[in-house]
Amino acid sequence: MPAQPASTTPLLDRIDSPDDLKHLNMDQLPELTAELRDEIVRVCSVGGLHLASSLGATDLIVALHYVLNSPSDKILFDVGHQAYAHKILTGRRHLMTTLKKEGGLSGFTRVSESPHDAITVGHASTSLANALGMAMARDALGQDYKVAAVIGDGALTGGMALAALNTIGDKQPNMLIVLNDNEMSISENVGAMNRFMRGLQVQKWFQEGEGAGKKAVSAFSKPLAELMSRAKSSTRHFFDPASINPFAAMGLRYVGPVDGHDVIEMAWLMEKLLDLDGPTILHVVTKKGKGLDTAEADPIKWHGPAKFDPVTHEFAAGKQTYSWSNAFGDAASELAHQDPRIFVITPAMREGSGLVEYSKTHPKRYLDVGIAEEVAVTAAAGMGLQGLRPIVAIYSSFLQRAYDQVMHDVAIEHVPVIFAIDRAGVVGADGATHNGVFDLSFLRSVPGMKIGLPKDAYELRGMLKEAVRLGGPVAIRYPRGNTPRVPEGTWPDLTWGTWERLQGGSDVGGVVVLAAGKALEYAQSALKDLPEVGLINARFVKPLDTVMLREVAQSARAIVTVEDNSVVGGFGSAVLEELSRLNLSVPVRVLGVPDEFQEHASVERVHALSGMDAQAIRTVLAELGVDVPLEV
Amino acid sequence: MPAQPASTTPLLDRIDSPDDLKHLNMDQLPELTAELRDEIVRVCSVGGLHLASSLGATDLIVALHYVLNSPSDKILFDVGHQAYAHKILTGRRHLMTTLKKEGGLSGFTRVSESPHDAITVGHASTSLANALGMAMARDALGQDYKVAAVIGDGALTGGMALAALNTIGDKQPNMLIVLNDNEMSISENVGAMNRFMRGLQVQKWFQEGEGAGKKAVSAFSKPLAELMSRAKSSTRHFFDPASINPFAAMGLRYVGPVDGHDVIEMAWLMEKLLDLDGPTILHVVTKKGKGLDTAEADPIKWHGPAKFDPVTHEFAAGKQTYSWSNAFGDAASELAHQDPRIFVITPAMREGSGLVEYSKTHPKRYLDVGIAEEVAVTAAAGMGLQGLRPIVAIYSSFLQRAYDQVMHDVAIEHVPVIFAIDRAGVVGADGATHNGVFDLSFLRSVPGMKIGLPKDAYELRGMLKEAVRLGGPVAIRYPRGNTPRVPEGTWPDLTWGTWERLQGGSDVGGVVVLAAGKALEYAQSALKDLPEVGLINARFVKPLDTVMLREVAQSARAIVTVEDNSVVGGFGSAVLEELSRLNLSVPVRVLGVPDEFQEHASVERVHALSGMDAQAIRTVLAELGVDVPLEV
Repeated sequence: MPAQPASTTPLLDRIDSPDDLKHLNMDQLPELTAELRDEIVRVCSVGGLHLASSLGATDLIVALHYVLNSPSDKILFDVGHQAYAHKILTGRRHLMTTLKKEGGLSGFTRVSESPHDAITVGHASTSLANALGMAMARDALGQDYKVAAVIGDGALTGGMALAALNTIGDKQPNMLIVLNDNEMSISENVGAMNRFMRGLQVQKWFQEGEGAGKKAVSAFSKPLAELMSRAKSSTRHFFDPASINPFAAMGLRYVGPVDGHDVIEMAWLMEKLLDLDGPTILHVVTKKGKGLDTAEADPIKWHGPAKFDPVTHEFAAGKQTYSWSNAFGDAASELAHQDPRIFVITPAMREGSGLVEYSKTHPKRYLDVGIAEEVAVTAAAGMGLQGLRPIVAIYSSFLQRAYDQVMHDVAIEHVPVIFAIDRAGVVGADGATHNGVFDLSFLRSVPGMKIGLPKDAYELRGMLKEAVRLGGPVAIRYPRGNTPRVPEGTWPDLTWGTWERLQGGSDVGGVVVLAAGKALEYAQSALKDLPEVGLINARFVKPLDTVMLREVAQSARAIVTVEDNSVVGGFGSAVLEELSRLNLSVPVRVLGVPDEFQEHASVERVHALSGMDAQAIRTVLAELGVDVPLEV
Repeated sequence: MPAQPASTTPLLDRIDSPDDLKHLNMDQLPELTAELRDEIVRVCSVGGLHLASSLGATDLIVALHYVLNSPSDKILFDVGHQAYAHKILTGRRHLMTTLKKEGGLSGFTRVSESPHDAITVGHASTSLANALGMAMARDALGQDYKVAAVIGDGALTGGMALAALNTIGDKQPNMLIVLNDNEMSISENVGAMNRFMRGLQVQKWFQEGEGAGKKAVSAFSKPLAELMSRAKSSTRHFFDPASINPFAAMGLRYVGPVDGHDVIEMAWLMEKLLDLDGPTILHVVTKKGKGLDTAEADPIKWHGPAKFDPVTHEFAAGKQTYSWSNAFGDAASELAHQDPRIFVITPAMREGSGLVEYSKTHPKRYLDVGIAEEVAVTAAAGMGLQGLRPIVAIYSSFLQRAYDQVMHDVAIEHVPVIFAIDRAGVVGADGATHNGVFDLSFLRSVPGMKIGLPKDAYELRGMLKEAVRLGGPVAIRYPRGNTPRVPEGTWPDLTWGTWERLQGGSDVGGVVVLAAGKALEYAQSALKDLPEVGLINARFVKPLDTVMLREVAQSARAIVTVEDNSVVGGFGSAVLEELSRLNLSVPVRVLGVPDEFQEHASVERVHALSGMDAQAIRTVLAELGVDVPLEV
């Protein structure tokens, strides 16, 4: 009988919960983090997972779990995509192969997934306000657990994180904020805070500040004074809550920068800092992709890498694809060549929004505002008021953060701002936090907003051209996924508010399907052997094509609407509202995403579960009396 | 013939536009600001106008218009309620008596009102992102006008203002930011930034910093060096863009604090600062209510004072009123006495939300996060996750700013957070920016959200009690205005999702009116002589009372819905969606606020114009065949 090969993760094999971690000696922690990194690389080699950020945060996560007692103590991860080591350490190692798969682990932390996941997250910059609330709840209820939030330097550019710091500095609740400074969000980081943090690491005055630091010791509690003497070797510097940096100015004790890969020093520091009264920021400097050479060298590429070989780290040969994001980016580049008024704004999503090329060809008409969607929209409003035709390129679920800015800064004065809304509809693996299934609902309520859903890149270009011509606020929303490339210079004419009749539907007494955007693919598939059923490409949701809708309502015996959006307040509701206004009475069946959060699974699977795929459409048609063969 | 009495405003009489201002000598400016203040006090004596803030900003506004050329140069006012002097100086003096009245001037700056109003505004913290956009538009188009933004220290606590600073510090566009530091927003200011700014004015290191300032001169451009030598008398200190305060740390040139009532010094400084490259913050310290003793002594009371005598400054005897805000505040106080889990959060609206008493009786379960609605909601989420039953007391139009936080931080995990939504529906005089007519639309799309519209303080209390019992996200929305007081200890039982039949409506073939919230008053008035028309208090909009709706739909020949919300995606749409789901076909007429922004006028007038008041309901009933006498 051959000998069992020795495990490559002997320490990790002994850990099923954070309690087990406490049985390790502190000097074993570096070995544990190495094992964790190997495990994370293996897990991520299947592709589509958040590798680089999770490698970067591994050491600080081990340090936190070593000194805290989760779940009674609370560890909050901002965005939550960097928490793979946390998932592994909290009893989910055996489930890591299910990450982002249907029924499997979420790609982010989820309260409903584990008691160790303190918050449910996916959008950036929320951890500090949550931590503030938790610390105040603890104090109001007379409890005594500890609260620690981990926030990246990218997420800290978000307004709500900065505003939360403002209140944390004021109220002084006990908490530890670990500023995980890896010098980038998904794209390279931007903004003055970022520049400032770079400055902290190199500036001469910072290193000369020792005197100021020493002087401040007397103001500190005893443990911190002890800390100071030790700190010189492990941190570049310490400060008192005085006036040296913006964190300190806001009333937070600032400690750092510390090497974010020195797990022993971090654990030692964190334990001491968690005992202090009031809020402390521990600034740790990490490297995205730490421990994997190729990822360290190109962390943008390795942010969410495709499938790769876990040993050689070479990518599997992928097929060339052309995404909706690419289609938008190419169209925007061409448009900007033609029209000097075009200006594209992104909230930290250059790569995801297809803007890498645009940002190079039009650097003076390109602005990345960091993770600050509100600023993106209102800066666009300022541009639109002063003669530009700004385009805000944004994911649907992130535009939710700027609903008021769309309403207040753009729509009231009908300012010409174009919203290029990517990842609209179900996005699949990223799940509930990232599904963009509410934009039709919240944008429809904005007076004067125009909303279009192109079925392909031709219509996308036609809508962009028309949006520039029309002025006023215009939203063009398209899904995650691929679409056929169209030739350069293609700029079809497309009149806003006109639908397209694709099939039949002129029969009196028939059934007509109105399908918008991505849902049109399902409708086409469902109807390909049903020529008697009408099919309309309802590419404009605001305004609707009232002329065609009236025709349909006056002749059809039933209407079916299909959309990749919530059935509450979306396209189907728009049709119901318009029919009510027109005093037309015809049965309408509304298909779309149900009024509940959709968990992660493939896009197609979520659509099937939602009852809006081809099969679901055929089922409804059969209910309406259409003679539908059993198989599609 | 008696001699014409001399004008009390001889300088102001000569000014019809900012150009006229340039004909004054600089030393005449103090006299002009005194005349402006007198004028503003006279204008505001009718009541309901923003007196204290406008008095405080008068000097800085005169200084800005003296050195800038509006409208080619852009002057942006954050919130815009402090800009009365600006309105007077830009040709609107003769219209000041129409402020906030139907057809008259807006209470804020409005692009559509004057070319001198650079932005349309009403919500806080938007000016910096707008200014960023304008400055970048100017540079992209190769133009050369100047951009100046005026922002209060209160508005600067808003996340999007801080996030905009982050990008302004990074991109370094030429602009002047006047930080109008009056040490308060509407309530007293809160937050660490506020504490920091107080610190700037008193700290020893600040006054001892002269050496640092002098050393920095060499790094400055020539005009600024010249400035430095003069500055000592007019400012407490100057700094270079180094590392002394958070603004400087973010890459902004910081100058100040300066006396915000010394118009000559400010004009001199602004002219020089506007010539510098990059962004500059000029920190000016002002006094809210400046020049009116009673207002200086109690600026909260004089923020938007009731009618007063312009000479004696005594308030006219007002009748005692009891507002919905009071009703909520009293209920919250009682609830907190009974239940230790109650915790109330406000985004800087203690007075407006009826929380003055609560904040005194429950100081440990009260949090004002400043003008940061996102933080209010997400901090509540953190509290709800940790065992509290937080209540976010917020105006409807400001909750628009936290739509994503409601969705992402509260709703996905069904966290128990209660939203007490004040000023829901049409608010009247504050106009388009403040009308809360979208919350039913955007909240309805949030999965798991419960929405109630109490008709009176009894139902408000019943809904609050039920919300605490139910857990999960619950929204209770009520209008601006008064409601009868109910006795202490009144806590009626009210099952969530049950409507109340108020009149008739059981007749087969009749017409039934479903009225929600404030709209119920109109419906009751419209139907009082029409007993054959059914009337239902549709107090729950999510979920609807499906049982009663089905009964109605199966017996009535038509349904009329009435709501104080946009007709897009609101209560009427909910009814249409539900009937579609139930496969019930009955004509529905949806009354509410049309899909356009409503300008300022009295609440009743806006409702009449919207076609949703009693008369409009009767008109629709007549169209539906009800025998309606001509007069209500």
